[in-house]
Amino acid sequence: MSPVLVLGTVAIDSVETPFGRKKAVLGGSASYAAYSASFFAPVRLVACVGSDFPERYTRVLRERPIDTAGLERVPHERTFRWRGRYGADLGEATTLATHLNVLERFNPNIPLDYLDTPCVFLANIDPVIQERVLNHLKPRWVVLDSMNYWIQHKRKDLLRVAKRADLVVLNDAEARGLAQEASLVHAARRLKKFGLKRLIIKKGEHGALLFEDDKFFLAPAYPQPATVDPTGCGDAFAGGLTGFLASQKKITRRLLRRSVIAGSVMASFTIEDFGLKRLRRLTHAEIRNRLTEFHDLIRC
Amino acid sequence: MSPVLVLGTVAIDSVETPFGRKKAVLGGSASYAAYSASFFAPVRLVACVGSDFPERYTRVLRERPIDTAGLERVPHERTFRWRGRYGADLGEATTLATHLNVLERFNPNIPLDYLDTPCVFLANIDPVIQERVLNHLKPRWVVLDSMNYWIQHKRKDLLRVAKRADLVVLNDAEARGLAQEASLVHAARRLKKFGLKRLIIKKGEHGALLFEDDKFFLAPAYPQPATVDPTGCGDAFAGGLTGFLASQKKITRRLLRRSVIAGSVMASFTIEDFGLKRLRRLTHAEIRNRLTEFHDLIRC
Repeated sequence: MSPVLVLGTVAIDSVETPFGRKKAVLGGSASYAAYSASFFAPVRLVACVGSDFPERYTRVLRERPIDTAGLERVPHERTFRWRGRYGADLGEATTLATHLNVLERFNPNIPLDYLDTPCVFLANIDPVIQERVLNHLKPRWVVLDSMNYWIQHKRKDLLRVAKRADLVVLNDAEARGLAQEASLVHAARRLKKFGLKRLIIKKGEHGALLFEDDKFFLAPAYPQPATVDPTGCGDAFAGGLTGFLASQKKITRRLLRRSVIAGSVMASFTIEDFGLKRLRRLTHAEIRNRLTEFHDLIRC
Repeated sequence: MSPVLVLGTVAIDSVETPFGRKKAVLGGSASYAAYSASFFAPVRLVACVGSDFPERYTRVLRERPIDTAGLERVPHERTFRWRGRYGADLGEATTLATHLNVLERFNPNIPLDYLDTPCVFLANIDPVIQERVLNHLKPRWVVLDSMNYWIQHKRKDLLRVAKRADLVVLNDAEARGLAQEASLVHAARRLKKFGLKRLIIKKGEHGALLFEDDKFFLAPAYPQPATVDPTGCGDAFAGGLTGFLASQKKITRRLLRRSVIAGSVMASFTIEDFGLKRLRRLTHAEIRNRLTEFHDLIRC
């Protein structure tokens, strides 16, 4: 089982959903992705926090096989903070506040023993940082995630690093935005023309779409009876997917499709409670059962 | 191959979509359903039109193996007419005008040789009429479709006849409305408690969900590059699905799942042109190819 290097943000989040309000919980793209990936492969984390970062949150990360040698604690800086609110439909969050803090000057130091990591997940963070980290690595497989903010503000930088990824993960609005196409089918084809090798378009409660070699694979979303907090679901999806791929000897077309299901399973757990709460009490048996349930959902 | 009895409306439609405007074309739930079903099984049509109904539209129906002995032409009445408009997203139509005309007093006469039809599709029409027709038949398998209007205005009548159907087809808004539940998972479970045996929830571009024995099956929608006119897609979906089931010796769980794919295939063709245009030029080879494409979309 090869390890996965996860680059992204480690944040302190405050979240409101129709089901409650949580203050100053551990969040960030790398936290969710690393936690999720760690159920499939050991994780090497690259991220930074400020001196205000609670030591207990580092311990939360270490509950899982997550190497935090690459989690830099920058003195005299504050940790990245995000505050958001979800409406009744638990759709896109409304961002109430973003304080980049330590992220404004983040220039990652990568532990030397990370450099040969075969599988890399560049979680959502400034694409310039994604590229800088990628320049130091010689991975066999790279997955990249991003968000609307970078599509709007650093489109060229994002496209440059996205072309180097084996698989780019975007949500439907992001795919449409980056391609500047209203139809998802046209958007996928356009992004391929831009030079993206493979693409996953996440559609939230409507599942995810893998586009490879001009062919689509449609993965369902889990028919979720109870959803509590969607924060980090996209990161858990892509992290789980990357972890699943890292755990395979060879990445075939079939395993790539199965990795989308694995990612969906991890997202389906994440949404069941606030923050990392559900993932912290998740067991391998639960993952196995839900994987079976997922495959049964589409078997015909 | 058993025949299918299709009860529903035959209408004269005027439709506007972002791609054009069509005046006084053949429409109605029974026209689309019968046309779609006829690719899988012979169809027996039960519907009524007025004396203004163009003879050429009857010929359009007879292009396919559709028995129109049960298409009653009522003298001194006008055919049901519907005028609607679709916005840029081709979502729900805005109804600009509905003239029930002949439907206001529709009391179907069923040809005697229809009475033993083993498979029945009660397409969207007043549930009181659906029930009245069903009372004359002893079918082995009944599929029922409806719409928001009947959920709002004849909820009790609809639930009474829906409980007698083997399979009820609704779109997501209708399922939520009938169950009075916001979550689709809860709605499906509630409708089962109401006494519905099996349920399909259509989610348009997001596919369809079959709920049977407390288990879900998720069928994808075809990744449609070009959509022109969604009118009749739901009817073609349910009609194709029923025709597919009628063509089977026995209805198993697996074949029921496959019937959802067959319905989705027929809907995916219907949306590609105005009215019945695409279905009129459709070939069995095209259906076979797209069925294969669909199964490949979810294979993993």
